[in-house]
Amino acid sequence: MNVAILGVGVVGSEVANILLKNKKIITARSGQQIIPVVGVVRNLDKKRDVKIPLSADIDSVIKRDDIDVYVELMGGVDEPYRVVSEILKRKKAVVTANKALLAYHRFKLQNLAADTPFGFEASVAGGIPIIKTLREGLSANHILSIKGIMNGTSNFILTSMMNGGANFDEALKTAQNLGYAEADPTFDIGGFDAAHKLLILASIAYGVHGDPEDILIEGIERITKEDIFFANDFEYVIKLLAIAKKVGEKVELRVHPALVPKDKMIAKVDGVMNAVSVVGDAVGETMYYGAGAGGAATASAVISDLIDIARGLKTPMLGYKSPLEKELKLLAQDEIRTKYYFRLRVEDKVGVLAKITNLMSENHLSIDSFLQKPVTKSEGEVTLFFTTHTSLEADVKRVIGLLKKQNFIKEDPFMIRIEE
Amino acid sequence: MNVAILGVGVVGSEVANILLKNKKIITARSGQQIIPVVGVVRNLDKKRDVKIPLSADIDSVIKRDDIDVYVELMGGVDEPYRVVSEILKRKKAVVTANKALLAYHRFKLQNLAADTPFGFEASVAGGIPIIKTLREGLSANHILSIKGIMNGTSNFILTSMMNGGANFDEALKTAQNLGYAEADPTFDIGGFDAAHKLLILASIAYGVHGDPEDILIEGIERITKEDIFFANDFEYVIKLLAIAKKVGEKVELRVHPALVPKDKMIAKVDGVMNAVSVVGDAVGETMYYGAGAGGAATASAVISDLIDIARGLKTPMLGYKSPLEKELKLLAQDEIRTKYYFRLRVEDKVGVLAKITNLMSENHLSIDSFLQKPVTKSEGEVTLFFTTHTSLEADVKRVIGLLKKQNFIKEDPFMIRIEE
Repeated sequence: MNVAILGVGVVGSEVANILLKNKKIITARSGQQIIPVVGVVRNLDKKRDVKIPLSADIDSVIKRDDIDVYVELMGGVDEPYRVVSEILKRKKAVVTANKALLAYHRFKLQNLAADTPFGFEASVAGGIPIIKTLREGLSANHILSIKGIMNGTSNFILTSMMNGGANFDEALKTAQNLGYAEADPTFDIGGFDAAHKLLILASIAYGVHGDPEDILIEGIERITKEDIFFANDFEYVIKLLAIAKKVGEKVELRVHPALVPKDKMIAKVDGVMNAVSVVGDAVGETMYYGAGAGGAATASAVISDLIDIARGLKTPMLGYKSPLEKELKLLAQDEIRTKYYFRLRVEDKVGVLAKITNLMSENHLSIDSFLQKPVTKSEGEVTLFFTTHTSLEADVKRVIGLLKKQNFIKEDPFMIRIEE
Repeated sequence: MNVAILGVGVVGSEVANILLKNKKIITARSGQQIIPVVGVVRNLDKKRDVKIPLSADIDSVIKRDDIDVYVELMGGVDEPYRVVSEILKRKKAVVTANKALLAYHRFKLQNLAADTPFGFEASVAGGIPIIKTLREGLSANHILSIKGIMNGTSNFILTSMMNGGANFDEALKTAQNLGYAEADPTFDIGGFDAAHKLLILASIAYGVHGDPEDILIEGIERITKEDIFFANDFEYVIKLLAIAKKVGEKVELRVHPALVPKDKMIAKVDGVMNAVSVVGDAVGETMYYGAGAGGAATASAVISDLIDIARGLKTPMLGYKSPLEKELKLLAQDEIRTKYYFRLRVEDKVGVLAKITNLMSENHLSIDSFLQKPVTKSEGEVTLFFTTHTSLEADVKRVIGLLKKQNFIKEDPFMIRIEE
């Protein structure tokens, strides 16, 4: 089986190198040799640590008759979409690690692919076989929920704040120094990376459509040491979670930092590691843990797709051809129901607490726990922390809007959702 | 696709019921309907909560031409082996949850199956898709190690001792009252159940042969509260681990209680839950967590195999047809190298410690940590706890043999291996 690797960066080099290094065992498992015959790069002059022929002419490579499978590792959305579409029209198999491509075009690609094999295990959670798990391993189940820690950068920062006492800026700087965060970390810490992955998983589990712009995405940038202290005191950790849940005939998709009870398995996932908890109606809760990034771990997923193709895998790209369930639509963001945590910086004055609690109860929020910290920072101000019983997102937003207008509020009110 | 269910107990009923209950989503994923057309039982008079026709005549059912796949849930080894062999000779697909059948006959069954689909996801760790993960998800990797908590009964007992302060007998009784342990719990707490599962996983990962009788199996029966206290003090937990490791050109297989550092992910798996940690040369460490038993969780695995067969899965039973690696043999038990923990009940007398340490150093054991507890139980006796640096199993056995002969030893010396 001849393979072309489109994009020979960190992952592409590892794919070529592992195919050669583990050739014997891969051949035994595949039933045939998997040979990387060409790599496509933009710049032929750049030095690369690979032993395969290179080409800079992608359009001639995708027309070659001797190539059986194309591995797309180019990055971006539009150009990969053009290239992958051309390849699928020629009925050649595709393997990709490109989550953005799939977050925007997965259903169009599934239609184009039809019976042509299309692998994308590497697009979510690096080396963890979570696509295979949802598409095949748990295929007997109605999926009740998916909760993932799928961004290693964010989990590293939150773990550093939780265990090491760092504040957000210090933790981000450490992550950048260690190569875990980009110079511009927005895509990771803003929740967008996790949102792309969530959309991919949700399309397998539920057949639900949607672009990243359609779902609730909040990042971890506003989390402070005070939030961490509160969480710790009340037996929670803070994790950036990507959540998919079936609610009646709708699916709720959201990415945001969440307070998670310490004794939950997913709360125990620290540092750059990823994990995805999946609850099925038959299997109950299962969890999948491992490195969510890195050249070799991602290459492990890419090559597992190649081996599946060599073995003659016939499973449809997203795991189904006829609709999975009847018209599952996205739940509107205002209709989300969960528990909430608030941090409010207020004037230290008689009557303030009464005003807040009145405002909340008038808007259907009921307080579950409350903490007031001794006066800090500036004289005459105090920080209030409280959590609510299960409430409606629309009510919470209205309360935050109303609080902002009050004179006694000294900082923008901050809220984190609780996931139990 | 017509399915016969051989054995309609807890798992078989769930298979039939979930196939009916989740019919719509299973059909969408399978590309065809999966219909349970008959269940085979020993006693037709027994009341069962299933809505499928039943038969007591297994030999006529396995000859029926209208059946495409047989689900073997009979229990035992010899009779299922006879039945499954007959079915495979007729080129009909088989799905089984029977770990004992596979622990003894997996290579013979793979030869018999040849190109006939044979699923056994449910034989290891219930609903966790660990067979699929090893056979397909991590197929790019040389597997460096597998460490599993694969017996829920034992993990429940050890967790009760660790967190609840129960002693072994109390914890076992609780497990029995909750239905987590059999009246005769030997198969579970003696490590035999986990050993069967380990052999299955090791045959996929390494192609290594062996019967349960060929590997090191120790149970949790001799673990006391004192061991738990020591473990806790030294930042360990005690888990019954099933371990497979590649050591040079050999494979080490062993099942025994182990001290595991608290910060390892597998150390955090509590109660009846199962988890398997797999380290691959490309992917690094990954871990898979979920319910290891129970009718619905096991049925989830059985049905995922049925869906794979409906989808046209062609992967060979164990994941390869030609040998995976050249002559990987089992490592002799005496050649195991790890760290060890000892608990010794000795006479509280001058010179005893010197005698012990001399005896150890003469036999190449070097002490890593040491704890002496104040005199308890009977006057004039004391309990010593210590751990060694990495040592050879043969040396450890010799030391235990020599210690037993000493007058100052008041109880059989007890040892637990450490797994870091």
